[in-house]
Amino acid sequence: MMLKRKLSTSNRTDFVDATGLVQAAVRELGLNEGVVVVFNPHTTAAVTINEGADPDVVRDMSVSLDRIVPWQAGYHHAEGNAAAHIKASMFGSSVTVIVEGGSLQLGTWQKIWFCEFDGPRQRHLWIRPLGPTP
Amino acid sequence: MMLKRKLSTSNRTDFVDATGLVQAAVRELGLNEGVVVVFNPHTTAAVTINEGADPDVVRDMSVSLDRIVPWQAGYHHAEGNAAAHIKASMFGSSVTVIVEGGSLQLGTWQKIWFCEFDGPRQRHLWIRPLGPTP
Amino acid sequence: MMLKRKLSTSNRTDFVDATGLVQAAVRELGLNEGVVVVFNPHTTAAVTINEGADPDVVRDMSVSLDRIVPWQAGYHHAEGNAAAHIKASMFGSSVTVIVEGGSLQLGTWQKIWFCEFDGPRQRHLWIRPLGPTP
Repeated sequence: MMLKRKLSTSNRTDFVDATGLVQAAVRELGLNEGVVVVFNPHTTAAVTINEGADPDVVRDMSVSLDRIVPWQAGYHHAEGNAAAHIKASMFGSSVTVIVEGGSLQLGTWQKIWFCEFDGPRQRHLWIRPLGPTP
Repeated sequence: MMLKRKLSTSNRTDFVDATGLVQAAVRELGLNEGVVVVFNPHTTAAVTINEGADPDVVRDMSVSLDRIVPWQAGYHHAEGNAAAHIKASMFGSSVTVIVEGGSLQLGTWQKIWFCEFDGPRQRHLWIRPLGPTP
Repeated sequence: MMLKRKLSTSNRTDFVDATGLVQAAVRELGLNEGVVVVFNPHTTAAVTINEGADPDVVRDMSVSLDRIVPWQAGYHHAEGNAAAHIKASMFGSSVTVIVEGGSLQLGTWQKIWFCEFDGPRQRHLWIRPLGPTP
């Protein structure tokens, strides 16, 4: 019942619009009315919902997060990506989106973003419908 | 099955207690046992759960967020509200609350807060029950 | 249908691995396919999903959060734990985890963490299955 989808990120910090991928999964799963849980199975990545119209919004988020959680700050975790783990918990591991008539219900400016904090990498998103499916 | 509710915010940053509004929606939807998803469809607002007894808690949150994510920081997004977008992703687009016997299950001090980060504005909350409804 | 589980924290800031506790609750609830909502009913604590292999990851998160949200910063909330409330909203009140074949579906390195921000205390986690149960 859960669909696994692959995606690629292109930079150390990268925001990938996953809205189309999630909408296609909802169609494939046959979910008409309910919600969909979009889960990120990685510990240095996250999922969030934010503006998709102006690419500067996610660019500003990326720069701001680097200021709030610097890459170097005397961390003990030896892999050099402690900052990425902290950002992952600040943004969260999943989003829940309402579905009506088979369509994701998002606000006018909202998109679902996969948030890469330690890329570039091959990543996954897990998509789980809740509600009556055929 | 999703209810849309309106609310007004009064300041640029504003926390509005939406607990009563959500509880009333759960009653109207006839949800007795399950969970309710409370979704904010805006990209410069959020929903969170936090203390409702002392109004200084949300006041401190507002001031702290302005310190962590300053309004001016060389952002590229031209609308002057880049900080509001970042705060929105830090606090999250939705909360999920358990319902038993028709009542929201919240801890003693918990309230559901609509978080305005670029007001004052007219805003919406979308409320979706999950569980057997009449 | 909701299970309430107790746990103890040992420090002012403390991360307790709750994965086993949640998995045991899923078994007890008889949830085979669906999702589980793990809800924290406290306003100075949170739940997050992050790495469990290297204990330095949660140690780095704890130190970083103290830097981002200092304990003393001219707060108005009189109880001395305003910072804990802010961290609670940054990390979030619940996580939603997919269940298949009776097992929590988590990424290779992911664990479910109860996040104490104003301990040590006795705390609770509320666990609610969504999906067909016996």
